[in-house]
Parts: sequence; structure tokens; C-alpha cells
Amino acid sequence: MMLLAAALTHAHVPIFLLSVALMLGLARLFGEVAKKLRQPAVLGEILAGILLGPTVLGEVAPLWFNQLFPTDSPVEAGLSALTGLSVIFFLLVAGMEVDLSMAWKSGRTSLIVSLMGIFIPFASGFVLAFAFPGFMRVPFGVDPTIFALFFGTALCITALPVISKILLDLNLFRTDIGVIIVAAAIVNDLVGWLLFAVVSTLMGVDGKDSSSIGKAIAGTLIFVGVMLTVGRVCLHRLLPWLQANTSRTSGVMGFAMVGALLCAALTEWIGIHAIFGSFIFGVVLGDSRHLKEKIRTSFEQFISSVFAPLFFASIGLKVNFLQHFDPVLVVVVLAVATVGKVVGCGYGAVLGGLPRRAALAVGFGMNARGAMEIILGMLALQAGVIGEDLFVALVLMALITSMMGGACIQKLLVRKRELDFSELLSAGMFKLRLSGHSRDEVIAELSALVAARIRIPAEQIAGSVLERESVVPTGIGNRVAVPHTRLPGIRKSCVVVGMSENGVDFDAPDGEAARIIFLVITPERDTGAHLQILAAIAKAANEPTVAEELSHATNYSEVVSALRNIEELH
Amino acid sequence: MMLLAAALTHAHVPIFLLSVALMLGLARLFGEVAKKLRQPAVLGEILAGILLGPTVLGEVAPLWFNQLFPTDSPVEAGLSALTGLSVIFFLLVAGMEVDLSMAWKSGRTSLIVSLMGIFIPFASGFVLAFAFPGFMRVPFGVDPTIFALFFGTALCITALPVISKILLDLNLFRTDIGVIIVAAAIVNDLVGWLLFAVVSTLMGVDGKDSSSIGKAIAGTLIFVGVMLTVGRVCLHRLLPWLQANTSRTSGVMGFAMVGALLCAALTEWIGIHAIFGSFIFGVVLGDSRHLKEKIRTSFEQFISSVFAPLFFASIGLKVNFLQHFDPVLVVVVLAVATVGKVVGCGYGAVLGGLPRRAALAVGFGMNARGAMEIILGMLALQAGVIGEDLFVALVLMALITSMMGGACIQKLLVRKRELDFSELLSAGMFKLRLSGHSRDEVIAELSALVAARIRIPAEQIAGSVLERESVVPTGIGNRVAVPHTRLPGIRKSCVVVGMSENGVDFDAPDGEAARIIFLVITPERDTGAHLQILAAIAKAANEPTVAEELSHATNYSEVVSALRNIEELH
Repeated sequence: MMLLAAALTHAHVPIFLLSVALMLGLARLFGEVAKKLRQPAVLGEILAGILLGPTVLGEVAPLWFNQLFPTDSPVEAGLSALTGLSVIFFLLVAGMEVDLSMAWKSGRTSLIVSLMGIFIPFASGFVLAFAFPGFMRVPFGVDPTIFALFFGTALCITALPVISKILLDLNLFRTDIGVIIVAAAIVNDLVGWLLFAVVSTLMGVDGKDSSSIGKAIAGTLIFVGVMLTVGRVCLHRLLPWLQANTSRTSGVMGFAMVGALLCAALTEWIGIHAIFGSFIFGVVLGDSRHLKEKIRTSFEQFISSVFAPLFFASIGLKVNFLQHFDPVLVVVVLAVATVGKVVGCGYGAVLGGLPRRAALAVGFGMNARGAMEIILGMLALQAGVIGEDLFVALVLMALITSMMGGACIQKLLVRKRELDFSELLSAGMFKLRLSGHSRDEVIAELSALVAARIRIPAEQIAGSVLERESVVPTGIGNRVAVPHTRLPGIRKSCVVVGMSENGVDFDAPDGEAARIIFLVITPERDTGAHLQILAAIAKAANEPTVAEELSHATNYSEVVSALRNIEELH
Repeated sequence: MMLLAAALTHAHVPIFLLSVALMLGLARLFGEVAKKLRQPAVLGEILAGILLGPTVLGEVAPLWFNQLFPTDSPVEAGLSALTGLSVIFFLLVAGMEVDLSMAWKSGRTSLIVSLMGIFIPFASGFVLAFAFPGFMRVPFGVDPTIFALFFGTALCITALPVISKILLDLNLFRTDIGVIIVAAAIVNDLVGWLLFAVVSTLMGVDGKDSSSIGKAIAGTLIFVGVMLTVGRVCLHRLLPWLQANTSRTSGVMGFAMVGALLCAALTEWIGIHAIFGSFIFGVVLGDSRHLKEKIRTSFEQFISSVFAPLFFASIGLKVNFLQHFDPVLVVVVLAVATVGKVVGCGYGAVLGGLPRRAALAVGFGMNARGAMEIILGMLALQAGVIGEDLFVALVLMALITSMMGGACIQKLLVRKRELDFSELLSAGMFKLRLSGHSRDEVIAELSALVAARIRIPAEQIAGSVLERESVVPTGIGNRVAVPHTRLPGIRKSCVVVGMSENGVDFDAPDGEAARIIFLVITPERDTGAHLQILAAIAKAANEPTVAEELSHATNYSEVVSALRNIEELH
């Protein structure tokens, strides 16, 4: 008759709430930091768990650790229920990102890449694990064949979300090579998870005879078959109805979550893991062209900001990462995984006709394993198929391959990252109240702010800006002006922002004095950056809501917050 | 070492997932139905719980019920953890709706209304409970004074979200009377929850001496004081920073949830219920003008489509509503609650200078108790302060007063509901493939579809439409035409939609043939509806995304889904 009830009594409630708050809070925080550093959020989220878990908090303050995350208590049951739901919803979204139509249409090259990228890593993983069970720490009593099957599967996983993110960042998503990588990753994902489903029926093998394994495999195939045909048609029909008759986003979201839970319950009952059902449901749901982009985006945002951090933080809670860190094992796993994937996919790409450099880029892209690998490792650990040492090695391999992916592609294809406007700004290059009253005074003030940073005398900057100003005035209307110049000898673009209470005349077409002045300085040779920055500011100034927010801004954060609206307008 | 772990073993997982899926699925479904009937969603959500709970499923199929919702099992701990989190997040959002600045600025009238609306219900509740403890079913061993204090508090609650929804529906939100009601409800809410905080320290009274109660009350006051001053300023500063430096919506959302959980843990530890902390955090967060409307909306949507349904469904699971249904008690509670509130608030409004009819409307508006009352009752039931009979009576009272509110205001103030475009459409008045090739043929076809429904011969309808057409052609461009007419003798507007594959010439300004034809028929006297409908269709046709979706629609649901974009464009 209790709310946090029966098992969760009054004494447990504050602890449960505090644990959830700490997990979510730290994981979100570190996830954001990781993103700022252009790394996958999962890196930060797992780190948060490691800090809160036995590795750090458990060593530093074991009493606190045992208070916060008690074992054998209803608090643990509550947390495990919550993280269990979280991973189910995470896989739902991961499935939604799989674009089936892209897989069907994927050309010969991506097919070869994905098949080679499955076969070679799987084979090398299987052989390694089968040949050296001792080194790989096969737990006592585990059938070496099953262990080797699992390890092979683990090496052939790729992380579609990480790969998509890398390609988007490098502005490669819509290019030929981007399409090849994504299509290959999709096929790889589907085959990989099917393999996993089969292996997972074998993993919980203890009490099972071969007939129950056969039943589970048959059940899996029937489930996948039905979902991809009947389920697909039904969902395709149902979605417009839902979007027409319920509260839109929340109606579809509720439906998606319920569907994922039902499929998860079904697959768990069949004997394969719950997340497989949720993943397949996501694939089928995401495949319908009726699913509106807006709904898809806001749904993904929720899951990745609430459920994903909770789940990944919980991973760090389970294992002592320092105690089970075996450097040799980590290096071997990382090496075999990377070599297998890069050689497999790269060779596939060469066979498919790509030049060698591009083929290598494909290999390193497909090598990113991200969250998927970690989830797979977690399940194997739970099932007792692998030991904690190998689990730690798999997690590190997943993180390192993901971090490598972007850097390698960038290097190999000599790509520039897409310009992120808010990165150009900094609190030190912002002046809330400009004292100057004329154009020349204001430009001198702003030039002085940036002079030290770019190591060019303020007078020289101001002079160059004014020269440009004399050719074309830079007031762009809506009280915004963008004096600018291109300077030799600097390496990075920068933007200095100043606000003037009374306004300064920059000869704008609408005749209004400028209240917000962006001084834009770019390297002489980088014409692209120059135009991009000016266009972004002009776009912001033209958007009424942004202009409104800008004119009310009273500190640096508010200016940045207003400008970030531009990114959403894309 | 388990994912759904330690306590939740393999056998429990499918059951846990199925229970959550059923609760969420049914609650969402019934919630949507309730909304369609213009009732609060909570009505449907609780009904879903009653169906799944001991009242229906427990009676009809007790075996299934015990399988799905086992007591004394880790499944129960998991569900209770989940519903406990849900109510905390629900109160966070409820707090965010409280507009402090409106409360500060609220005029004399709303202040009198809210104070009278607290005092009179509280006094009548207290007296009734204190005078007739037997009739009110005071549980054995509960101090009658505490019981009476609780019951008084229960009667002075109002449900701000329900009230806002009613006013929005009747297009009263921005009117004088709307502002008075909302401001009064906000003050009422704040005072009511403070009262509740005090009473809740008394409720868990068993082992507490008066000094620990004193400490809890002092703690509450300090918490509220600090949050409303220091906390308010800090949040106000932090929000722009969060919005500038994190992934926007999800950054703020994660932060809000963590803050709510921490405050909840704190207040629970102080000795008042967790939800109070979450509510106050929501109030302070919602008060910052930096919180962007878009973020607020999508956050509310998420909570109300996932967490709120789970919580309210869980209420039906706890109690057998039939077994504990005592008609006399229900009628008495309902009567005292309604009379106290209507008289208190109504008299207050008369004192504040409102005419009698408007004053009554204020009273019935403030009488809506919705979700808040139900949560309060749940907490009292858990604490053992009230019995199940009174709990059932409180839930019914909350639902009935909420359902009455809108109808009474509508009647008293003779308001029309705002026109909801998609309500005018129906599957029966839709033709996917018009066979006609000319304007006249198409109009005859569409008229035939609607003739039976409005009981006017098709020829007469078509004639009247064509007459209008001869004055001004109704092709509005973008392949849309809106032939229309106003007819005597019909009571409701209706819209018939037809699609023509090859297009029909309606003399549109852009010269394109119409592919989608809306035949609009309105009552002769209702000029307002006529103009509104035509304007809505024109707006839809002008919106490129809507026009695009409309032109690809292949069935009725897809047309409605496309048209519903208009509502989002408002």
C-alpha cells in the first residue's frame, strides 16, 4: 500500500532518489563534456559510473558507496528495474536509426564491405578465443565453443550511431563514401544482432537441452520474419492514424515505448534477450516513411538525455575497472578487433573499387564500436559467459575504437570539421557595454580585445577593418553590424562581440543604429570560413526571435544562448 | 551482476516488462479517449489502472492478476520505484506551471478568492471530520485531529493544470475572469501544498515526538525560503548557461530532473514527502524567464505522456474501487467539497466586485481538483491516515469536480468552445478518388456524401454551392479548392474532403487544377465558424510542408495527419 512501496520503505526512498540523481546528474555532465570534446557521450557517461562505482567511490569512501548503492536491498531492485528499462528504450532508438530501405538499396560495394567486415573479425575473434581460452579468461565451466562464438560476434559489431555522428561532423554524410559506410554499417548491425540473438540463446545454456535451443532459434526467426513483413505493414498503417488521432508526439512516443516493451517481453520469453525485441521493433517503426522527422528527433532526444545516461552510468557501477584492468588483454583485444575490422572492411572496399586511402577510411569508420559493444559485453558478463577482465577490455576497446574513428577518417580524407558557430565565441572576447559612440571607436575597442589573442597589434586590426568598412558598410539591419576582415598570419577564425546601449551608426539599410556588433576576423586564405561566419550572423539577425533575444541579452551566456537558436534553425 | 538484476531475475523480466507495457499502453489509450471527450486525461489513466487492478482484472481473472502484479516480489519493488519516480517528475512539471510572478501581481480579487477558497473548504472539512469521525471512517489508532487536519487540507486543494486546460478550451485564458481564476488557483496551490507539507510531517507521526515535528516544520520553512530566494537567483543565472553550453532541450531537461530528484531526496530526509521538494523546485525553475517556451513544452509533453500515465494507472492497482465504494460517503464528500469551494470562492469573487454569475463561474472553476487531490489522497492512504473507503471517495470527488468545472463555466458564461478543425472531419465524409472531371461533377459527388448526414437533398446542397462558386471561384492555389456554402436548418458545420487524381479546374489564381477539394458547409447564422474554417484551410494550403503532405496522402488518416500540422503552426 506504499508508493515507493512494499519493498521500498520510507528509509530507502531518499537513498534511491539520491542514487538516481547522482547517476543521472554526473552522467549527463560528463556526457556533455565528452560531446564538447567531440567524443561520443557514452564515454563520459561510463566514466561517471566508474567514478560512482567500486572503482573510485568504492575505494575512496567505501562506507558512502555502500550507503548509496546497497546490494541485496530494494534500492538495488529499483535501480536494476530502471536501468533495465533504460537499455530497452535505448535499443528502440538505436533500431529506429537503422534505415532498412538504405540497406535494401545498398550497392555492391557496401555489401562487400559489410560482409567482409563481419566475416574477418568474426573469424579472427573465434580463432583467437578458441585457441587461447586461458589467455582470454574463459570462466570456469563455460563451453569454449560458446565463448568463442560470443567473442567472434563481439568483434564484428559496429556502432551505427557513433558512425553517423562522425560522418555528420565531418560533413561526409551525404557523400558517396559516407553512404557506403552507413549502408554497410546498417547491414552489419542487422547481421550482427541476429548473430547475437543466436549466441544469446546459447549463452543461457545451463539448464537448456538442444531442443529448447532449437525452439529459441526458431522463435527468433519467426519473430524477425513476422515483424519485417506483417508488423511492418501494420505499423505503416497505424502511424498516420496515431498521428491523426492522438496528441501527436506524445501519442506516437507512448505507442513506441509500449510496442518496444511488448516485443522485449516476447523475446525474453522466447529465450533471447529482451533488448533484441526492442531493437527489431525500433527498426520496423523507424522504417515507416510516415514517422515524422520532428517526432523522431524529439523522441531520440528524450531517450538519449534520460535513459541512455542512466544505463551507461550503471555499467561503471557493476565492475571495478582498475582491479580488472589487464593491460596485455586490453591491447590484444584492441589490436585483434581493429586489425580484423580495418582489414576486413578495407579489403572489401578495395574489392568494391574504392581507392586505397578511402578504403582505409571506410575500415576505420566501421571499426567504431561504441555503445553496442558495451551492451553486448554487459549481457555476456551477466550470463557468466565472460569474466570481468575481458568485460573491461571490451569496454575499453569499444571506447578507443570510437574515439579513433573520427580522427582517422579526418586524417585520411583530409576533411575539415563543419564550422560550429558557437565555438568561435569566447567569454573573454565579449564586451557588454561598449564605451565608444562612433564606428571607429567601437572597432578600436573590439580590436583591442582580440589583439593579444591573435598576436597582431590592435591598430593594425582596426585599420584593416576600417579599410574594408570604407568599401562596403557592414550594418546589416535589425541593429546588428558585422565589421570584418581577413588577416594574414593567423590560424583560426575568431569573433568578438560587443554591445552598445545607445547604438552606433554602421550605415545599415534599415537606418537603425547597431546595438550588437560582431567583429569577424578570419585567416586570409580561408574564404570559406569567412563567408560561412558572415552568413550565419546574417541569418541570426534576420530571425525575429533571435534578434529579439539578442536585444534583451544582458550577459555573455544569454548572447550565446540566443545565437544557438541559429543551429536549431538549420 | 545482473542487468535487471540481483532481485529481478530472468523469470521476472518478461512479467515486469509486460506489466509496464500494459499499464502504460492502457493508460495512454484511455487518456487519449478522455481527451477526445474533452475530459482530463487523468480520468482515463485511472480507469486503466482500475481495469488492470483488483477491481476488475483481480475479480475476473485473479490468476492472471496475481501473475502480472505479484506482491512481495522484485517486480513489485521495480514497479513501485518506477511509479515513485513518475509522481516526482509529475509534480516537477505541475510546479513549473505555477507562475510566481502572476501570483505576486495578482490583484485584490484573486487574493480574496483564493483565501476564501482555502479557508471555507478547510474549515468545513475540518469540522465535518472532527465531528463525525465514525462516519468518515477514521482508521483505528489515528489521532482524530490529524485526520481532520488532513481532510480539511484535502478539500482546499485545486488543480491548476485542469483549470488552465478548461480556460484554454473555452478561450477564456487571457480574459479578466480567466486571469482572476488562474492567479487565485496559483496562490491556492502554493498555500495548499504548504499546508500539506505541515500535515504530512504530522501524518507519519507514530514514532515522532513533538520536537522532531518542530524540526520538520522548521526544515520545510527554511527549504522553501532558501529555494524562493537563493535558489531562484541561482537557477535564473544557471539556465542561460545551460542553454548556451549543453545540448539545449536535453541539457535543461536532465538538469531539471536531477534538481527535482535532489530536492525530493532532501525533503523526504527532512521528514516531509519527496514530492513537495520536487514541486517547489519546479515552481522556482518555471519562474525563470530564461526557460524557453519550447523546452518547457517538450518537457511537459514527455512527462505527461510517459510518467503521468504510469503513476495514475498505478493508483487503480492499489485499491479495489468497487469493494470500497460507499455511495453515501462519496455523495457527502462531493457535496461538502463542492459547496465549500463554490461558496468560498464565489463569495470571495462577489466581495472582489464580480457580478454574481461570473462569481459562480469562478467558484466552479476553482472546484476542479484533478490529479493533485488524488496524489494527496494516495499519500494519506499510504501513511495510514485514511481508509480505503475515504480514498475511493476522494478520487471520485476529484474526478467529478474536474468534469463539472468546464461544463459549469461554459453554461454560466455562455461560452463557445474554440473550433477544433480536425473535429469537423470524419472518415465517412472522405472520398479518396473522385470520379468527376469537372467542377460541377465533383461538387455533386461531395454533396451526395454529406446529404444524408445533414438531411438536405444533395441537389439542393450542390445548387447552393455552385451559386456561390459563380460569384467567386474557390480555387485557392497550391492545388486546393474550398467550395462552400451556408445553409439554413443545419446545426453543425461540416467539411467533406475529396481527392482527384487528375485535378479539377477551380479557377485558382496560380492556374493549377485542384487535387484536394474541401466542401465546407456551415449553419447559415454562424458566420464566425464559416470564416474560421475557410481561414484554417487556406493556412494549411499555404504551408509548404502541409501542402506537400496533403498531395502525397493516400488515405483518410494521412489527410487528417497532414491537416493537424495546422494546429501546430498556431
